[in-house]
Amino acid sequence: MRILYHHWLYPGARLARLVLGEKGLDVSLRPVTPWVRDEAFLALNPAGEVPVLVEPTGAVVAGATAVCEYLDEVHADPPLLGTDALARAEVRRLVCWFGEVFRRDVTEPLACEKLLNRVMGGGAPDSRALRAGRTNIHMHLEYIAWLTQSNRFLTGPRPTLADLMAGAHLSLVDYAGDVPWDDHPAAKEWYMLLKCRPCFRPLLTDHEPGLRPAPQYADLDF
Amino acid sequence: MRILYHHWLYPGARLARLVLGEKGLDVSLRPVTPWVRDEAFLALNPAGEVPVLVEPTGAVVAGATAVCEYLDEVHADPPLLGTDALARAEVRRLVCWFGEVFRRDVTEPLACEKLLNRVMGGGAPDSRALRAGRTNIHMHLEYIAWLTQSNRFLTGPRPTLADLMAGAHLSLVDYAGDVPWDDHPAAKEWYMLLKCRPCFRPLLTDHEPGLRPAPQYADLDF
Repeated sequence: MRILYHHWLYPGARLARLVLGEKGLDVSLRPVTPWVRDEAFLALNPAGEVPVLVEPTGAVVAGATAVCEYLDEVHADPPLLGTDALARAEVRRLVCWFGEVFRRDVTEPLACEKLLNRVMGGGAPDSRALRAGRTNIHMHLEYIAWLTQSNRFLTGPRPTLADLMAGAHLSLVDYAGDVPWDDHPAAKEWYMLLKCRPCFRPLLTDHEPGLRPAPQYADLDF
Repeated sequence: MRILYHHWLYPGARLARLVLGEKGLDVSLRPVTPWVRDEAFLALNPAGEVPVLVEPTGAVVAGATAVCEYLDEVHADPPLLGTDALARAEVRRLVCWFGEVFRRDVTEPLACEKLLNRVMGGGAPDSRALRAGRTNIHMHLEYIAWLTQSNRFLTGPRPTLADLMAGAHLSLVDYAGDVPWDDHPAAKEWYMLLKCRPCFRPLLTDHEPGLRPAPQYADLDF
């Protein structure tokens, strides 16, 4: 059986779960705690980061980029990067946009402050970070609306790795209850399409004892 | 003519230059200043980051990952990612290792503090950061030595994107004069092989007025 080492609060690991779901691949999920030193896990990935995929052959693929590109190469259907080189470049640009810019502007000041920090035993969220995140998210939801104005998904009629990366991040902010969906109907419509996909279902059951998701988190008709 | 928007102190832009060089592709370099807001450049890449590649057709590819993967897809010779899916996954894991872990541990506390901070008009380097970087670099040079103990390069007999990414970062730290080469002969041997490649030559002429490179920076026999 294929194994994925993951943590539900890490966007890269959520992305890998979405990719496995889109490809229809069975996987056994093994939760790890990336911020606690674990020699056995470091032997799989010296960077100590999730996700790590272990194939039934024992082959190890470490890190979100490597795991997702690998799965798309080995299980080509459905293609998640696009079919020509420029389309693939645009998907990869957007994957980096959500993985770097959205992460810095929104995921870290909101989801990391409110969820990860608490799970790690940190103190109360930094109110300045929360304020910054709640301001920044509007620009990002407008950008999603702009990208989807002539397409159902971010780069075309079908979801790509860019949509899944955006969904991996936004779903955490949504768990924290900090997505102003009603102000951004076009972004909401895009997220509803994504959230209805079977690959999303397992993420919607994620929870941590004592850290309940916002009411709309698992609601497909929010 | 192909155009690359870049800044010599940004490792991702250095990586793109190395990839163009390995592929033997002509390019016109356009320096930009990523920390100064520039609407024309933001229209090419909303993230405001270098590198950005503009093809002779006018097609735009933005961001280091997108540019390098695109160039490797469109100009397959020599292949810089490897020939089978698991080999490519290992190259991509190492690209992320140098782009994230090495960057955080070494490039930021040393090269960014001493070079980028000065070019941006910042104050004196933070001595705690410098101390941390000078401690951290030993582990990274040992890791390079370990990876190359049965290969000339990081993953095999030929350089891949992983070697070029490592070289893009290390060359900046070397410019700052902070690589303890004499303590790490195996890593030094690997870097000498890389530095002798024609793709490296243009990087070795990089300089900023008033910010001279360390004496060994451009020396192939250091």
